[in-house]
Amino acid sequence: MTNDGIIVELAPLPPLSRRRFEICEHKGLGHPDTLTDGACEAAAVALAGAYRKAFGRSMHFNVDKGLLIGGRSSPRFGGGELLLPPKLVICGRAAASDGRFGVETVAAEAARTFLRQTLRRAAEAFRIECEIRAGSASLQGLYGTDAAPNANDTSIGVGFWPYSPLEQVVLKTAALLGSHTLRARFPAAGDDFKVMGLRRDGAIALTVAIALVDCEVHSAAQYFEIKQALADWLTVQLGIRPEINTLDDAAAAGEAGLYLTVTGLSAEMGDDGQVGRGNRINGLITPARVMSLEAAAGKNPAGHVGKLYNVLAHRIARAVCEEVPDIAEASVQLVSQIGRPLSEPWAAYVQVVTSAPLSLVRREEVRAVTASRLARVYELALRIETEGIRLA
Amino acid sequence: MTNDGIIVELAPLPPLSRRRFEICEHKGLGHPDTLTDGACEAAAVALAGAYRKAFGRSMHFNVDKGLLIGGRSSPRFGGGELLLPPKLVICGRAAASDGRFGVETVAAEAARTFLRQTLRRAAEAFRIECEIRAGSASLQGLYGTDAAPNANDTSIGVGFWPYSPLEQVVLKTAALLGSHTLRARFPAAGDDFKVMGLRRDGAIALTVAIALVDCEVHSAAQYFEIKQALADWLTVQLGIRPEINTLDDAAAAGEAGLYLTVTGLSAEMGDDGQVGRGNRINGLITPARVMSLEAAAGKNPAGHVGKLYNVLAHRIARAVCEEVPDIAEASVQLVSQIGRPLSEPWAAYVQVVTSAPLSLVRREEVRAVTASRLARVYELALRIETEGIRLA
Amino acid sequence: MTNDGIIVELAPLPPLSRRRFEICEHKGLGHPDTLTDGACEAAAVALAGAYRKAFGRSMHFNVDKGLLIGGRSSPRFGGGELLLPPKLVICGRAAASDGRFGVETVAAEAARTFLRQTLRRAAEAFRIECEIRAGSASLQGLYGTDAAPNANDTSIGVGFWPYSPLEQVVLKTAALLGSHTLRARFPAAGDDFKVMGLRRDGAIALTVAIALVDCEVHSAAQYFEIKQALADWLTVQLGIRPEINTLDDAAAAGEAGLYLTVTGLSAEMGDDGQVGRGNRINGLITPARVMSLEAAAGKNPAGHVGKLYNVLAHRIARAVCEEVPDIAEASVQLVSQIGRPLSEPWAAYVQVVTSAPLSLVRREEVRAVTASRLARVYELALRIETEGIRLA
Amino acid sequence: MTNDGIIVELAPLPPLSRRRFEICEHKGLGHPDTLTDGACEAAAVALAGAYRKAFGRSMHFNVDKGLLIGGRSSPRFGGGELLLPPKLVICGRAAASDGRFGVETVAAEAARTFLRQTLRRAAEAFRIECEIRAGSASLQGLYGTDAAPNANDTSIGVGFWPYSPLEQVVLKTAALLGSHTLRARFPAAGDDFKVMGLRRDGAIALTVAIALVDCEVHSAAQYFEIKQALADWLTVQLGIRPEINTLDDAAAAGEAGLYLTVTGLSAEMGDDGQVGRGNRINGLITPARVMSLEAAAGKNPAGHVGKLYNVLAHRIARAVCEEVPDIAEASVQLVSQIGRPLSEPWAAYVQVVTSAPLSLVRREEVRAVTASRLARVYELALRIETEGIRLA
Repeated sequence: MTNDGIIVELAPLPPLSRRRFEICEHKGLGHPDTLTDGACEAAAVALAGAYRKAFGRSMHFNVDKGLLIGGRSSPRFGGGELLLPPKLVICGRAAASDGRFGVETVAAEAARTFLRQTLRRAAEAFRIECEIRAGSASLQGLYGTDAAPNANDTSIGVGFWPYSPLEQVVLKTAALLGSHTLRARFPAAGDDFKVMGLRRDGAIALTVAIALVDCEVHSAAQYFEIKQALADWLTVQLGIRPEINTLDDAAAAGEAGLYLTVTGLSAEMGDDGQVGRGNRINGLITPARVMSLEAAAGKNPAGHVGKLYNVLAHRIARAVCEEVPDIAEASVQLVSQIGRPLSEPWAAYVQVVTSAPLSLVRREEVRAVTASRLARVYELALRIETEGIRLA
Repeated sequence: MTNDGIIVELAPLPPLSRRRFEICEHKGLGHPDTLTDGACEAAAVALAGAYRKAFGRSMHFNVDKGLLIGGRSSPRFGGGELLLPPKLVICGRAAASDGRFGVETVAAEAARTFLRQTLRRAAEAFRIECEIRAGSASLQGLYGTDAAPNANDTSIGVGFWPYSPLEQVVLKTAALLGSHTLRARFPAAGDDFKVMGLRRDGAIALTVAIALVDCEVHSAAQYFEIKQALADWLTVQLGIRPEINTLDDAAAAGEAGLYLTVTGLSAEMGDDGQVGRGNRINGLITPARVMSLEAAAGKNPAGHVGKLYNVLAHRIARAVCEEVPDIAEASVQLVSQIGRPLSEPWAAYVQVVTSAPLSLVRREEVRAVTASRLARVYELALRIETEGIRLA
Repeated sequence: MTNDGIIVELAPLPPLSRRRFEICEHKGLGHPDTLTDGACEAAAVALAGAYRKAFGRSMHFNVDKGLLIGGRSSPRFGGGELLLPPKLVICGRAAASDGRFGVETVAAEAARTFLRQTLRRAAEAFRIECEIRAGSASLQGLYGTDAAPNANDTSIGVGFWPYSPLEQVVLKTAALLGSHTLRARFPAAGDDFKVMGLRRDGAIALTVAIALVDCEVHSAAQYFEIKQALADWLTVQLGIRPEINTLDDAAAAGEAGLYLTVTGLSAEMGDDGQVGRGNRINGLITPARVMSLEAAAGKNPAGHVGKLYNVLAHRIARAVCEEVPDIAEASVQLVSQIGRPLSEPWAAYVQVVTSAPLSLVRREEVRAVTASRLARVYELALRIETEGIRLA
Repeated sequence: MTNDGIIVELAPLPPLSRRRFEICEHKGLGHPDTLTDGACEAAAVALAGAYRKAFGRSMHFNVDKGLLIGGRSSPRFGGGELLLPPKLVICGRAAASDGRFGVETVAAEAARTFLRQTLRRAAEAFRIECEIRAGSASLQGLYGTDAAPNANDTSIGVGFWPYSPLEQVVLKTAALLGSHTLRARFPAAGDDFKVMGLRRDGAIALTVAIALVDCEVHSAAQYFEIKQALADWLTVQLGIRPEINTLDDAAAAGEAGLYLTVTGLSAEMGDDGQVGRGNRINGLITPARVMSLEAAAGKNPAGHVGKLYNVLAHRIARAVCEEVPDIAEASVQLVSQIGRPLSEPWAAYVQVVTSAPLSLVRREEVRAVTASRLARVYELALRIETEGIRLA
């Protein structure tokens, strides 16, 4: 794309952090949506690798639909029972492998490995099903021996930089809740959690929902003690006191009114999940920011613009802020058109907030940074193909 | 909520329509995501009705997860074959019905009826499966005999008003593509389509992808004639010429390079769908607007804030624009907290663009309009429960 | 078939009832295998009717595979909970209906209706899934407009007559356990039962396993009282005292050691079922008699010899005994060959036990009775198509 | 069991081979029923091993229900396409593994390995799903630390010896069709075949149905040449000329009228399979012999009498013939009663055909052989648990 095609515009609006109100959300690593995303992304990386190994190049696939059907459980203080395991369905399309490997077997094994690496409990209990079919001929045609595949769809990718202070605290809370330190210190803390942050003027409020594990909790009293200790510990780390499991019924005598689980996962009891309903590729859900509905997880980055352009827009926004002086905040929108080269989006739009008037020089620098990243989009696609993306 | 709690802020930014760049998207009524949304929403309305009929009140349910697993087909000029039907999975939780009715039967029948009313072809061919389980006790407890249920989750609802000219043209294109007039005039036009709109400064570009039906098309030449005629007709109606099926390969001799289908649905050939991945409750996907990731379809509005607050925020934004003078554009954010009354959000934030300086009087009027809508939230919940929402 | 082709042979063996040892078994109407058979047979009758209504003639179908995946339950004295419903999968092939009706919808609705008519409890709770695909072209070709379709397979049908005294008492026990009288008198008696009969010389032993329904039983003591009363009542009716639920643990304090269920069905707790694993078309399982492994349920009788020839052989055996003097017992074997007319089996073999030496006249009479039944096989096929067969 | 309890009776009937009529059938190793049996049996062996490894002893399981849902294919001379893979569902119950291993993962992997070892093509393409649930408490209770578990059901096991000449030729045909020699000589011969044998007086007729593989067949003419060559070769080996694929339509121009497949399996095109519908544990289906309906495959032999007693009855019949002089044929029936030790059947019945009058000495010898085999039933159970059984 020529630099001239890139639209750069000044946002007269102040950065998000200086507005009076702000909300954002993070779904933790054991959240049903996050698990489904992670499993499909693991399947995508494994499929790309299997095609390269068997055929010397990647081929058409797209496993960006998935459903986690929650199970049934019977939590009890001291240890209950998982009555019915959750079922994970990985759905999509993939080119036939000519019998050199089993497409669905590769996907299912990658998903299982992902669960084992992610969850402390119950990874074996998940039932995994694949519904992966051959795609339509015209879409498969986009994948030839081309060094530079074209867009497979008319899609939008967006990104922004930097994270606001609220967003940073939400991400830090998530990191703490998933950390080895917390897991060691609070064995009762489950892998499934959710963090919601809200700022009204200067006041930040944090709400955390986290599943507790029944075999580590022996009474309602102990449940509330653990919750208290967890809140205390987080307060020290964050400087803000989160509210935890606000739905808990302190008056309830038994297990019923508490967020108590057998496995540390809400998916054990009917909480279902889907691909593309959780965190965006920046780890957050931010309704007042530019935000894409595209599911990144499970897509083949080579040509599935919905994945690649979101990662790319995020990286461009960051590069613009870090490499161009006076840029306080950037948000980027990229639009592909089906059949066009990936390095030539139909539209590229960068909106910036500056700490000084936006000069022509700066404007050109923003264009140059953007263009340089677009030019290296195939390199990025290859890296994503190999490494996958993390959504939590 | 007291009016004082409602934050009203001036957006110094010009309305979206005056920015240099804008994109938005609509997924048509036969798009796999839209079908999955519609089926789950139909199931939700049916379940609410069945509970009221059997028990005199609604009960806990949530069928907001769904997966449409695409089939396989063999399109041929003059009429091909559907080799494997698509499979629709409706997933969620619902209170047990004590045998008075079958929860899954009610949901499946409602989904079937929805398909019959929506699609001209192949409604019978869909395989429908339900995975609806009893929910956890604490969530079920939110549904008592209360006239005023509380929030079941910490969720965000957002909305804006008015539609920009680009958004209006995308919605109009969608309406035309789904209209009786077009269906009568172009029998080859399928029910599955997608509209993407993009504006660069004053120039609007429209891209339409629409499945053509093979039994109405007898050659590649006729395919391109129909496409041309459709583009001509839309141009007359819209004043803008859309590009249609840009991936078509004009050089291809046979069916392979064209968007040709047996049923008019991409779901016949492996295009999968999910709940919550399509249009927002305003009928659009708008990455640069406030936008929620919550899936509205399939939720019980009484207490599932993710559904109710999005509809409510949309209505508040509209009411603010229509009832308060000088308000050119409004965007609304509402945040619930688990356990709080629905009429008392944790936060309500209204950002306005005005055609005149924002006076204290106007600010109070915005608050008053917002508060009046919040006060009637239960009425809205009941209407949604009975009528459902439309996403396309 | 010409009479000469029919082989008639004298069995020097005495009738079964005069041998020293004999066993037979009946699976009751709520047994998982019987339910799966019944559901598939109901689907077959409904499909045949739907084809006739839509196309004026029957078409190719075969839904003779089915799986009942047991659920999970938590029985409690006074009434427990069905945690996970059983799932019934109806599997097979059927000609496409051109959209005039939904093949899988017709099958699923017929199965649901069958469950409602058969079970007193939990019919609504069953999850029903269909996996019905189009068949291969050559098999479909067997169904043209022919008045007289040919065999679709090389299959064996067998039958015998009369029932031995042991077999009669097993069938009578089954009839009593499924009767209105018993259901009214013993509301705690479930729909799922099994009867095993064994004779050693003159001594008959009957074992009955029958699920009791927890909401009708309030203690272990009452459980054993009901069992006793049921045994008493059956003893009066049968003249033989059956042993009931021999696995019961009289020492067990709670529900655990008893055959206690929420729904009266073992399928609620993981007891799975399959088509073709239950009673033969004469209502019994008789390992020492001629016996076919063919599943009759779910097949299209017009051409699916596995179904038709078993019914026919049973009827021929009966007719031979009833219409030819001196015939004390008959067993019949019919073999089809793929592609041959149904009225022309590859082999027809009748083995008889006589009360007098087998004269040439009698032998010819046996042949004549057999031939006359073979000649009317299409009539029988049509009646089966319309009415279905009963396996319990 | 004391010898006195074993009933031995003379069958005045001549051995089967001297009657005027006889039929039997074998389903080959790639037949859908055989594959389902084999997969469930492989799962059973793997589960038993996993329990022993993790817990030091076997535990309760029963995976004796299974369904193979056929796929869809498009065979073409020179090589067609598998449009939709077959799906194998393994269903049953198993004690929870406490997370030490995944019950369903172990079963699915064993089934996959079985397919790879059995099939030359398409083993990777099968979709494998497990539906394995925890069993009811009372059944689990049968598996304690007992050295000698009790019967879990009232079941019947039967067996006979020797094979008749017809049965031997059917088994030999099956062995040839699955042999390395044939596979090397006829690469077009598929893994799915079925053999039906029929004898009328001295004349034996053999019918073979065998799938041909499309990539090894380039025209209808070549198809018929291969069939001819295969029939010639089998005739030399067997001394009898089989009829092959009698449904073939010699007049058909294209692929449609032939038994042509992509994978060599009828399961690719909607031919479904089930556990327990194929060969008995002696490798045959013999309607006029003693025959059990029990599915042996997938059962835990320790306590699942339906499996163990069939194997045992077969072995007793063989031992009686081989170890007791003058015994020409034996058929054995064993009946368990739920809760009784396996070595103490409710009834044991041996019917013999002798070449000399049945003396008291011989009668006692038959009893002794039977009793000695019953006494070693636990040893047999252990061997079956470790090695599994072969049904084809």
